[in-house]
Amino acid sequence: MKTVLVTGFDPFGGDIVNPALEAVKQLEGYASDSFRVEVRELPTVFGRSIEKLRGYMEELQPDLILCVGQAGGRTDMTVERVAINVNDARIPDNASQQPIDTEVVPGGPVAYWSTLPVKALVKEMTEQGIPASVSHTAGTFVCNHIFYGLMHQLAVTGSASRGGFIHIPYLPEQAARQAGQPSMALETIVKGLRISIDAAVRYEKDIVAVGGQIS
Amino acid sequence: MKTVLVTGFDPFGGDIVNPALEAVKQLEGYASDSFRVEVRELPTVFGRSIEKLRGYMEELQPDLILCVGQAGGRTDMTVERVAINVNDARIPDNASQQPIDTEVVPGGPVAYWSTLPVKALVKEMTEQGIPASVSHTAGTFVCNHIFYGLMHQLAVTGSASRGGFIHIPYLPEQAARQAGQPSMALETIVKGLRISIDAAVRYEKDIVAVGGQIS
Amino acid sequence: MKTVLVTGFDPFGGDIVNPALEAVKQLEGYASDSFRVEVRELPTVFGRSIEKLRGYMEELQPDLILCVGQAGGRTDMTVERVAINVNDARIPDNASQQPIDTEVVPGGPVAYWSTLPVKALVKEMTEQGIPASVSHTAGTFVCNHIFYGLMHQLAVTGSASRGGFIHIPYLPEQAARQAGQPSMALETIVKGLRISIDAAVRYEKDIVAVGGQIS
Amino acid sequence: MKTVLVTGFDPFGGDIVNPALEAVKQLEGYASDSFRVEVRELPTVFGRSIEKLRGYMEELQPDLILCVGQAGGRTDMTVERVAINVNDARIPDNASQQPIDTEVVPGGPVAYWSTLPVKALVKEMTEQGIPASVSHTAGTFVCNHIFYGLMHQLAVTGSASRGGFIHIPYLPEQAARQAGQPSMALETIVKGLRISIDAAVRYEKDIVAVGGQIS
Repeated sequence: MKTVLVTGFDPFGGDIVNPALEAVKQLEGYASDSFRVEVRELPTVFGRSIEKLRGYMEELQPDLILCVGQAGGRTDMTVERVAINVNDARIPDNASQQPIDTEVVPGGPVAYWSTLPVKALVKEMTEQGIPASVSHTAGTFVCNHIFYGLMHQLAVTGSASRGGFIHIPYLPEQAARQAGQPSMALETIVKGLRISIDAAVRYEKDIVAVGGQIS
Repeated sequence: MKTVLVTGFDPFGGDIVNPALEAVKQLEGYASDSFRVEVRELPTVFGRSIEKLRGYMEELQPDLILCVGQAGGRTDMTVERVAINVNDARIPDNASQQPIDTEVVPGGPVAYWSTLPVKALVKEMTEQGIPASVSHTAGTFVCNHIFYGLMHQLAVTGSASRGGFIHIPYLPEQAARQAGQPSMALETIVKGLRISIDAAVRYEKDIVAVGGQIS
Repeated sequence: MKTVLVTGFDPFGGDIVNPALEAVKQLEGYASDSFRVEVRELPTVFGRSIEKLRGYMEELQPDLILCVGQAGGRTDMTVERVAINVNDARIPDNASQQPIDTEVVPGGPVAYWSTLPVKALVKEMTEQGIPASVSHTAGTFVCNHIFYGLMHQLAVTGSASRGGFIHIPYLPEQAARQAGQPSMALETIVKGLRISIDAAVRYEKDIVAVGGQIS
Repeated sequence: MKTVLVTGFDPFGGDIVNPALEAVKQLEGYASDSFRVEVRELPTVFGRSIEKLRGYMEELQPDLILCVGQAGGRTDMTVERVAINVNDARIPDNASQQPIDTEVVPGGPVAYWSTLPVKALVKEMTEQGIPASVSHTAGTFVCNHIFYGLMHQLAVTGSASRGGFIHIPYLPEQAARQAGQPSMALETIVKGLRISIDAAVRYEKDIVAVGGQIS
């Protein structure tokens, strides 16, 4: 029986509720014959988020780790392919830190690949009616930070576990407060995340499928 | 007891199912103490769609008419404010007609306002978490055509009934087949339409609220 | 010899320079065997802008009137097809007025068509490498206001002169101050406006060309 | 006297002219007291483009290498920060190759940073009125390929030279053929590239400036 750790971020920027977190929480206890999901919350804070994540990884010894964050303005579920070793905050985090062009892990490699089967996740989601695509940038804020921290932790501990990051769109109630922004219903997001977890467990290696970007 | 006529368009451009129509069909029988909804299907065809609509209006004598169509690429529920007297098809309709710069009603006025309380509809939807805005163009294809035809019919018959048009976004399963397009879940759309019908019945006249566009 | 009146708006929203006005000013004295351009400035103010425009029309007795305004966020030169009888300001004008859902001309028709050959203007511009399209909404702020005021004035005076409105994108220096906005170089805009004037003089009636919008 | 090598790609996808290449060619001979630009053309072909680039680097021994490519759909000059070790072609290159998820350099690191002062380039361009931003993905086609190939070459040869990549938008004549795409005038692009070269020569190390992305 595999353990799947799924994380979401706590409320951010003055909000009391983080709707992205609500989506993630709905996965608590999601399970099949071969896996069971554990959900944990991370602070939207540079540094502390990675410490927390390491703690949960030690506690749960997960076989698969999926970190989830929100990417306001994106239209679909975006499976991140690569994490980069930079913190470059456009706005302060929840601890009022705003690092600019510092390293996530001093001396670490420039980047890590996701070890999730990103193309398979996109294929499974789109085939089941969930808009999804591969993304080649997770930004430079806490989302990329935790993604890099996760992949670095797996690399330095020589872990056989796999991990990655998925960005989700705004929820409708968020888009309703700011004209012109795309959104996705909670149910659609949760379904997409379930499909992703199923696929990540099932595909030991990625499929070969068109999904790159010209620029 | 008021009768509310809601229309949707039949499948278009080779599709077997028109997902927008599916949303509209879910309103069949939607009712309250003061109204009851009747749903009818219209062909995506210049001319014939208006004839059909006139037939349904005669049959049902509705107090309120809400025509619904799909606007692929839009992010939210858009309540159309104005219908214009032009047919200008970028692609052929379901009867292979492609009129260019002809009039919907020869000699008719340039435009008609919606007689729905458009600002009230937007306010009610956004307050209940449904992304929505006022739109000042319903395009120049069959959606604007039926909207103009509806308002003209109400005007020339001196009817006290009110009418208007709402554009809905792609559904997720449509967006899943074409990268980068925004979408909205069926449930969100149906909820938005229900709120719109409630508000259209309740508000005899529109509210004063910011909702214009600079350009 | 025909007289072409071209108008631009004065600086708006705290700016000292209105770059759109700069583009318009470069047309001063632009002429051919058959026409000569006169440029005038209009205040970004509901009401007063129309009074000013009427004054210039009396003074110059133009055969052709082209009003130009800026539509920040659009990617191309948009030739407006229809002006609607509504003032609905999202922000205050230069005289701190913010009308909501009032009429431009009380009791006036819902809308007026541009009497410029809009498809011909778009065809000529795009063939000469200037991104351009027909637009079916000029918004509900001062741009639509002056456009409606212009067309109403021509209509009520029974004038044989023709008129219309073109929206231009941000200039690069404006886009440089706000991430992600499209822009167009002054030279490209001026070239597009010159082509438009040439075409508006040359085409007495519009061409038949695909250029509508589905929604 | 420093030598600056600037490269552009040959016509692609059936076009006879590559407008992006035209922009780059205008930099030929651009010089100051401290540098002189040499322009070279690269084939839009996986593999061969890197061989060609290596040849030019050997021939010219440049102190600075700036590769330029086109990113249709972007609104501004985007200075790429990171090159990743993947070829993932959505369409075939000019030699009909369409690699999917192969490595640019087998066994190479996941990614390389640009060694241009990316924030300084953006600051200098935007201050001089050219829309510009830092980008965290150069895509997965030949643009990212040459960028990775360049940075790898500099790394493995232990070169003190610096290098990087800039994406430019469509030109207006390209956007005029496809509705709704943003563009930038040739003159604006060339000015932006000149400013970038000046800044790249002048700033030995990057500045600290806000310029990250949340996602």
